[in-house]
Amino acid sequence: MSMGQGYFISFEGLDGAGKTTQMELLAGWLQRQGMEYIRTCEPGGTPLGVEIRRLLFQQPELTITPLAEAFLFQADRAQHFQTRILPALAEGKVVLSDRCFDSSIAYQGAAQGLGTDLITQLSRIATQGHAPDLTIFLDLDPALVHKRTSALDSGRQEQSRFDRASEQFHTRLRQAFLALAQAEPQRIKVIDATQSVERIHQHIVELIRPRLNQSQGAI
Amino acid sequence: MSMGQGYFISFEGLDGAGKTTQMELLAGWLQRQGMEYIRTCEPGGTPLGVEIRRLLFQQPELTITPLAEAFLFQADRAQHFQTRILPALAEGKVVLSDRCFDSSIAYQGAAQGLGTDLITQLSRIATQGHAPDLTIFLDLDPALVHKRTSALDSGRQEQSRFDRASEQFHTRLRQAFLALAQAEPQRIKVIDATQSVERIHQHIVELIRPRLNQSQGAI
Repeated sequence: MSMGQGYFISFEGLDGAGKTTQMELLAGWLQRQGMEYIRTCEPGGTPLGVEIRRLLFQQPELTITPLAEAFLFQADRAQHFQTRILPALAEGKVVLSDRCFDSSIAYQGAAQGLGTDLITQLSRIATQGHAPDLTIFLDLDPALVHKRTSALDSGRQEQSRFDRASEQFHTRLRQAFLALAQAEPQRIKVIDATQSVERIHQHIVELIRPRLNQSQGAI
Repeated sequence: MSMGQGYFISFEGLDGAGKTTQMELLAGWLQRQGMEYIRTCEPGGTPLGVEIRRLLFQQPELTITPLAEAFLFQADRAQHFQTRILPALAEGKVVLSDRCFDSSIAYQGAAQGLGTDLITQLSRIATQGHAPDLTIFLDLDPALVHKRTSALDSGRQEQSRFDRASEQFHTRLRQAFLALAQAEPQRIKVIDATQSVERIHQHIVELIRPRLNQSQGAI
């Protein structure tokens, strides 16, 4: 569902697929076009979200059941949509979010086995029925992801329980994202993340330019 | 839904209605009967729950939307049921919980306006379809609650956003609890909390004794 004058783009992909780099490049492009945008993330896009992210990723001694974890992600999302995403869209801004509910559906729904229907249902409640206008799925083979995240680990503040998960887990995740993209081909675009950073960026700009033109008048 | 050999009793009521005192007296009675029990609460009955309770009640500077709050309570509940309540019941214990999902339905669903159907639906997911065998609602007129909690405030560690709410809010809460009791008269028993502490305790024991006899054999 498109909202107001703004335009909502989410980035999805396994850790290490290049989401951060591509969000940065796209933010620079938007700036050069003179477009107002915000960069945000799930979980952690609000002060409450930062606290929830801390519970999820920075307290490894804390036991969290998959179902409790699913509700924590939705609490983060409800706060994020109501206090950050929807107001920015209402002001006509472009919103770039590092992950959104597709991640919950893939991680908690599919890979952790709670069921994609359940997580879809909870996500609809948390987002008040809203969704990104466009979702970029940076697709990477899990074997490559393992190599990339290992190389990155030393420079990262957080190492979530997901980072430590097996290649098999990541394969289930990838399949779930691809299934989501197949079900919603208009919203979710799959981009081969093994391409060069610049080639991926160009691909994303090609996807976004006509949509922003439509949404906000000629750029 | 009754579970295993155990017996699950939740206590509900506005803050100041006497839940803590009555749980203590009932715990003493159970001990004298030689019955194994655990005392717990929502939110806060697990290590994750303690963290969630801290977010909800001890960080007044943290903005939390009603919907995000509702998901946080369900995260607490999912963890509580799976790691504490259901295992204790499976071991044949009596579980005494200070609040359960009726509080969410009354507070977030009715008084805060998210809708009782929505909170009932989320609670069913969090509890995996389970419910207390017996719920004691200690019923008190909100005007009296305001007097009682004001007197107690100096001795309490926490003052939640609910304590500070208006008498009108508490009236909506009470009506919600009474409506729940009317809808489930077998599970939810309303006790006039203006009676003496000892009289209320006797009333609770009279309610529980035959049910425990049925559940666990003669006491």
